[in-house]
Amino acid sequence: MSVYLVGAGPGDPGLMTVRGLELVRSAQVLIYDRLVSPELVAEAPADAVLIDRDPLRQDEINELLVSYGRTGARVVRLKGGDPFVFGRGGEEALVLVDAGIPFEVVPGVSSISAVPASAGIPITHRGLSSQVTIVAAHDERTLDLDALARTPGTLVFFMGLGRLGAIAEGLIAHGKDATTPAAVISSGTLPEQESVIAPLAEIASAANGLKAPALVVVGEVVSLAGSLAVDELLDLLAA
Amino acid sequence: MSVYLVGAGPGDPGLMTVRGLELVRSAQVLIYDRLVSPELVAEAPADAVLIDRDPLRQDEINELLVSYGRTGARVVRLKGGDPFVFGRGGEEALVLVDAGIPFEVVPGVSSISAVPASAGIPITHRGLSSQVTIVAAHDERTLDLDALARTPGTLVFFMGLGRLGAIAEGLIAHGKDATTPAAVISSGTLPEQESVIAPLAEIASAANGLKAPALVVVGEVVSLAGSLAVDELLDLLAA
Repeated sequence: MSVYLVGAGPGDPGLMTVRGLELVRSAQVLIYDRLVSPELVAEAPADAVLIDRDPLRQDEINELLVSYGRTGARVVRLKGGDPFVFGRGGEEALVLVDAGIPFEVVPGVSSISAVPASAGIPITHRGLSSQVTIVAAHDERTLDLDALARTPGTLVFFMGLGRLGAIAEGLIAHGKDATTPAAVISSGTLPEQESVIAPLAEIASAANGLKAPALVVVGEVVSLAGSLAVDELLDLLAA
Repeated sequence: MSVYLVGAGPGDPGLMTVRGLELVRSAQVLIYDRLVSPELVAEAPADAVLIDRDPLRQDEINELLVSYGRTGARVVRLKGGDPFVFGRGGEEALVLVDAGIPFEVVPGVSSISAVPASAGIPITHRGLSSQVTIVAAHDERTLDLDALARTPGTLVFFMGLGRLGAIAEGLIAHGKDATTPAAVISSGTLPEQESVIAPLAEIASAANGLKAPALVVVGEVVSLAGSLAVDELLDLLAA
């Protein structure tokens, strides 16, 4: 193998996989996303080439993967979350296939469940939700709020903070109950995590001031957060 | 903390999280699911109490968590995949809340993306799918094949192998294109992994003989598996 597309998990460096950490520790080239924990980047060998992908366009990243991959160096492409969940891992993998460069995908803990969990929300729960729909909310063309309003179970929106007002209004306009519990979790699993919970009709104003990256969760499972959230547990411990 | 609800990932022990492995290595009591890798169970200290949850009912597991939790011992409840993705983690967490026992949820790599990835399938891909719907297929009452047939993007069915014929027929009867690419991946990420890919109309017969646990994926992203599957990569390496 030459190139490894590795998921770094949702933020907390403890949620990196054992295999992923081994690969970072033996990387000769490490190309990392902005949202990857600095603690993980610091695990690379002192003589590794470190490349912050933030200022680069996707085609430039692809070129780096191919050019370093061709040298036979151990290249680790470290991505936030999981490479195949809105991570453009498939695109990078196809570029490597086209170039004939061997690679391996090492999955990571996705924000899908880990970020709601960090706010005390299980995305599935017997009797409340046996279906989860995950949507990239930044692309208006593919976001069908009419259909989503009628979709049962839990809705999870990635990249939805900037359009939260439109999403909530659209869901309600298409028939979703305005009292459906909703949550916005910013910087989930990190020390700076912040979250708010409110009925769908009020979630946009409640989330005012929260920063990206943020995950939006809509559904009855959010009502469990009151019982399971970390704040409550801290109260429990203090009692 | 006293009780840790820990996700063990999809099967490959290398996909365990760093934090999860630390907790297993310091567990005093380890209660583990059948699908958890024996290599991970073997990481528990030699004097830890090891409990296989397989012969136990859910209420018996709940009682064990509470009774061991009350002793103040470090109890690790190790679950396949992620505790909050069809893992009944929410139920166990609520039991602990009711009993006043402090606990922490440690997310794991879910099968959602890792198992399709192991067959070369990215569940999202720019231009092909920006939405993923995850369903527990074993519960006929909550499975709405009519709505799912009209749902865009990728469909991922957990526990769907036993009802695969009915699922495929139902989706097609409700208007899903019979040629939609579909995949069944058995024992994903493990050495014994097997997978088949076929048009939706033929997937049930193609998957004949595959064993549970298996994940069913339906959607255009499955067409990428030809380019990205491990077998192809091995050919590439051998070339």
